[in-house]
Amino acid sequence: MFFASDNTGPVAPEIMAALTQANSGYAMAYGNDQATTELTTRIREIFEAPDAVTYLVSTGTAANALALATLTQPWQAIFCSRDAHINVSEANAPEFFSAGAKLVAVDGPSGKIDPRALETAMSAIETGGLKNTQRGPVSLTQVTDFGAVYSLGELRAVTGVAKAFGAQCHMDGARFANALAALNVSPAEMSWKSGIDALSFGGTKNGLMGVDAVIFFDPAHAQEFQLRRMRGAHLLSKHRFLAAQMLAYLTDDLWLNLATRANAAAARLELALATVPELEFQHKRDANMIFARWPRHLHQRAKAAGAQYGPGQEGSPGGGGGDLLSARLVCNWVTTDAEIESFAALLRA
Amino acid sequence: MFFASDNTGPVAPEIMAALTQANSGYAMAYGNDQATTELTTRIREIFEAPDAVTYLVSTGTAANALALATLTQPWQAIFCSRDAHINVSEANAPEFFSAGAKLVAVDGPSGKIDPRALETAMSAIETGGLKNTQRGPVSLTQVTDFGAVYSLGELRAVTGVAKAFGAQCHMDGARFANALAALNVSPAEMSWKSGIDALSFGGTKNGLMGVDAVIFFDPAHAQEFQLRRMRGAHLLSKHRFLAAQMLAYLTDDLWLNLATRANAAAARLELALATVPELEFQHKRDANMIFARWPRHLHQRAKAAGAQYGPGQEGSPGGGGGDLLSARLVCNWVTTDAEIESFAALLRA
Amino acid sequence: MFFASDNTGPVAPEIMAALTQANSGYAMAYGNDQATTELTTRIREIFEAPDAVTYLVSTGTAANALALATLTQPWQAIFCSRDAHINVSEANAPEFFSAGAKLVAVDGPSGKIDPRALETAMSAIETGGLKNTQRGPVSLTQVTDFGAVYSLGELRAVTGVAKAFGAQCHMDGARFANALAALNVSPAEMSWKSGIDALSFGGTKNGLMGVDAVIFFDPAHAQEFQLRRMRGAHLLSKHRFLAAQMLAYLTDDLWLNLATRANAAAARLELALATVPELEFQHKRDANMIFARWPRHLHQRAKAAGAQYGPGQEGSPGGGGGDLLSARLVCNWVTTDAEIESFAALLRA
Amino acid sequence: MFFASDNTGPVAPEIMAALTQANSGYAMAYGNDQATTELTTRIREIFEAPDAVTYLVSTGTAANALALATLTQPWQAIFCSRDAHINVSEANAPEFFSAGAKLVAVDGPSGKIDPRALETAMSAIETGGLKNTQRGPVSLTQVTDFGAVYSLGELRAVTGVAKAFGAQCHMDGARFANALAALNVSPAEMSWKSGIDALSFGGTKNGLMGVDAVIFFDPAHAQEFQLRRMRGAHLLSKHRFLAAQMLAYLTDDLWLNLATRANAAAARLELALATVPELEFQHKRDANMIFARWPRHLHQRAKAAGAQYGPGQEGSPGGGGGDLLSARLVCNWVTTDAEIESFAALLRA
Repeated sequence: MFFASDNTGPVAPEIMAALTQANSGYAMAYGNDQATTELTTRIREIFEAPDAVTYLVSTGTAANALALATLTQPWQAIFCSRDAHINVSEANAPEFFSAGAKLVAVDGPSGKIDPRALETAMSAIETGGLKNTQRGPVSLTQVTDFGAVYSLGELRAVTGVAKAFGAQCHMDGARFANALAALNVSPAEMSWKSGIDALSFGGTKNGLMGVDAVIFFDPAHAQEFQLRRMRGAHLLSKHRFLAAQMLAYLTDDLWLNLATRANAAAARLELALATVPELEFQHKRDANMIFARWPRHLHQRAKAAGAQYGPGQEGSPGGGGGDLLSARLVCNWVTTDAEIESFAALLRA
Repeated sequence: MFFASDNTGPVAPEIMAALTQANSGYAMAYGNDQATTELTTRIREIFEAPDAVTYLVSTGTAANALALATLTQPWQAIFCSRDAHINVSEANAPEFFSAGAKLVAVDGPSGKIDPRALETAMSAIETGGLKNTQRGPVSLTQVTDFGAVYSLGELRAVTGVAKAFGAQCHMDGARFANALAALNVSPAEMSWKSGIDALSFGGTKNGLMGVDAVIFFDPAHAQEFQLRRMRGAHLLSKHRFLAAQMLAYLTDDLWLNLATRANAAAARLELALATVPELEFQHKRDANMIFARWPRHLHQRAKAAGAQYGPGQEGSPGGGGGDLLSARLVCNWVTTDAEIESFAALLRA
Repeated sequence: MFFASDNTGPVAPEIMAALTQANSGYAMAYGNDQATTELTTRIREIFEAPDAVTYLVSTGTAANALALATLTQPWQAIFCSRDAHINVSEANAPEFFSAGAKLVAVDGPSGKIDPRALETAMSAIETGGLKNTQRGPVSLTQVTDFGAVYSLGELRAVTGVAKAFGAQCHMDGARFANALAALNVSPAEMSWKSGIDALSFGGTKNGLMGVDAVIFFDPAHAQEFQLRRMRGAHLLSKHRFLAAQMLAYLTDDLWLNLATRANAAAARLELALATVPELEFQHKRDANMIFARWPRHLHQRAKAAGAQYGPGQEGSPGGGGGDLLSARLVCNWVTTDAEIESFAALLRA
Repeated sequence: MFFASDNTGPVAPEIMAALTQANSGYAMAYGNDQATTELTTRIREIFEAPDAVTYLVSTGTAANALALATLTQPWQAIFCSRDAHINVSEANAPEFFSAGAKLVAVDGPSGKIDPRALETAMSAIETGGLKNTQRGPVSLTQVTDFGAVYSLGELRAVTGVAKAFGAQCHMDGARFANALAALNVSPAEMSWKSGIDALSFGGTKNGLMGVDAVIFFDPAHAQEFQLRRMRGAHLLSKHRFLAAQMLAYLTDDLWLNLATRANAAAARLELALATVPELEFQHKRDANMIFARWPRHLHQRAKAAGAQYGPGQEGSPGGGGGDLLSARLVCNWVTTDAEIESFAALLRA
């Protein structure tokens, strides 16, 4: 009963095999290896983006912070959801890497940016003023931090506001594969065709050991990003082992298959939890995360039985007047039906 | 009819005289002059704070940013009003000088921090977590950016919340004298006796040429602050001219007299505007600033007649359905009754 | 006998008069005043540079750090003399404002950059490498920190090396007027016609109260510089008082007259000191600074008699085996013949 | 014939086995796993340091930059060898993570810091001054960037100077194991018993996939380091895979065995090269790196035959007047006698 996070699970066997295979003889360091070159080509094909450049790092926070720093001047604002990982779970990394840009929190449902709220926030910044923070990029999270998936229309509504202000758009796609599997659209449609300029393309939460990519659809960012990555100490010398993982991930639809399994497990968990009388869902499930709340005594019982999961949204007293505490439940490509059933049974009991 | 800001007015004649008097012979540079030493003593007397240390800079933003950077680690949050000058009018200077701390906007009436909202914001940060921003200092603005003055009780309610979390408190006192004149309390009461650890003590908006002080009530901050000031290029070599201004400012209650005049002018302006039928006040006036709104055509008339003032809160259509635009009107120690009358007459006509 | 620094002397009476004259009524804040506009025009005329943009700050360190930050990326090197003020006397301000660029110290005589040493240093940086610091701008100091003045030929030899690497050139002209008076060339010749892209144009060391300018000959830097200045808390609200000083400085050749007086005083001091048997000069005098050394007991006598001056180059035992200590002696526009004579007499005795 | 770097070789089979073994079920993320706890204990035993704290990152540059930032204030200097990796090969990462500290290059033989040169450099910084850079930590590289190993006496001579100034000491031990194997002393002797406060303990160059540790012997640094690591995006979520590698590395002396093999290969390469008539060694070999130079035509022949190695020290014409170009040759735990012989034969021919 392990629903704590999709970064607590194992590495997919295909990835382990790729690591073993890559571990033969010498390879040029710092990304000058053959696998890295292949990866660029593979990404261009998958994203239908012949000019895209791709860079690997070992954490999602590095992907986000380095990508955003490349798009942002220190005197600018980065607009993001109030609940965005970059705003609440990255220990000021975006501020650090951008040399002091300001994150402006925008409201919206289930961790999404509401386009009207974005327009209000971007309009509140005076054009041409020197004393105020300047407008910078917009960062969207897909899947959001409350488990929601933007539809293509929703994505484009947000990036449309950004573009109207001349702002570039970043997508934190730590769970890009989960969102893509949920929407059943193409990678291009969910990225550059929807106005995304820079993408944090996650792997770590979906079966890799610690590899996330940054993809820029405009190669003009290549040189600056590479210098920022090196200066940020995020260029791994034995880079072939990152590239080998990412290549295997993108082979035979492994990335989509893993994500589809995680999403399907979450769907089954949702069904099982729907039978718990005292539980209420807090957000609609779109991918592999469920946010729900239930009484304290059932939390105690679940924890006592060894269930692992994290707190959800803070401080959420139940609407009905009860003492409901919220939880975040994340499914993984290895989540089993047995786990799901045991967990639901605990809460139902 | 010049109500644009209290930093557009002239320098008080006593200050000009002090500059002339200071301009004689040689003086040690970088604050090693006699006037600077005297200033430290004077501040200690006025604030009843025998250990306080005082440093001069030439802008209020420097005072705020350097004081806050001294109190803040880069991975921390600075809690302030959503409308605080440090949050909206300093071009990310606090983020820059603190090497990337995050400003967390807290709601409250008329630019004040609501103590309950502060408690919520500070509680939302997980104690002991590594991934989230850490708690850092609280910054209050007195007079607030919407012209309100915290009572001592209100101040202490806010700093009390901060202290409960072990956080230090900074006061942006760009208009400290105006607030003090309004409350009629002692400098000690409105600062360290109300929980303030570091004070930006403004002079520029109240008759000086470009001098603001930072006062720490705990001298343990002295060395770090001085190094930050130097590294920030804010240590003036001909420092005697800053010290001479600040000493004259604090002589014979000049600072309070200038502020009292500005406040009184604003009170008279308020009375005059109360007779304008189509005008409504947006915030209660406490010191030398008035926020009000009135129809667009009256703005046009006022501007055409040469009145100078800035926009107030953005985009505020009138409650009654009209097309009301807001304005900020700031009085100064040189504001005349004639200006006030002419301006009100324009709007009444 | 005050030879400590040219920033310990008084403000020129013409400047005080300009301040008094500027102190009338209201003026738009933050550089939107009339004097600031006039200043831009005046600088363009004096420098024969119709596109130049000019910005004022209140310290020379701010001028240097903000100008360099505008020319430098954080992953680059700034090449400067080992003895440059930016390298040894600005408390890491260039590193701070540039978000972590590296200063690379280049050797040369009397605080100048030797062009061959510069070429070696710039060549040592691998073109196209990602792991090494990248090449950034070159910063020259005119007058150097050891009192030397680059001839036009020397300037162009250094900037020629820089240009061959595609690097921009900054001049720290804290004593620009002294150098210009010494060389008797035009401002244009000593700046953009010699390859300078950005100039810190000093005023504080030559009779102003605390005003230095940054001049960019290419206005493409204007917007970024202004945002950096604001974010660095170096945009003064009562900006008219900076502009008024700088305008008066540039009126009727005041700047050159003050510098000529300081240089002439130093020439007389040099003559007087040449008669001191136990004194030896360490650098050739070109402008208003003298570096010399003499026995410890004469230092003690001079200090006891109230002479003020600073240490020169550190730790310099005399070539002849004696115990010679070095000193830096700086003359000012107010240095008197009496001071000079008294001082030399002390050392001669 | 692959002598380009010890980061181009494969991962040791014991490490691959440890990864496979670690890849089972769930583990708490972000270092809250069992292996990480064990690692702390293991390091304390090996280093005879019961209070030491250990943190893992995925690059050596991250280890260096984060460790140094924890020991350094932004207004300080970091003293290091002119040739140190942190000074020439980390793209300003130390400056970035320290928020703008200055690296002061100190001379010495073969990449070592000369203690007298260090004393001169540290003395040149004025104690108590505000305008100059302040003294900060000293960073030594063991093995140095020119392949030399400090003896314990040499280490202590350098750290002794540092301690006399109250400065803390960091060791860049990217090749700590190679140095230890060469000296045949204990880890404690080569670290805290020789005055080292913080150690970058390398693994990547000695058979790991991308894991380096930072060890502080004083746990007072623990909290700040962890916050810096998170903010620097260097805390890996699937941390068990780093810990598993490092634990295996420290099991059954694997780390020392791998290093011993690399050193022994270099010794054999040195012997073989000594038979090349036109080759001269530039530095004494102490561990697994050789710096030598030979005529251009032999470089061409070697490259044409597929030999891989990097340039050594730049621009080194031969003493004898010939056209000698230098090279860096690095051996690895997988370097074979066949490679060595083929390479030497190429140069001999």
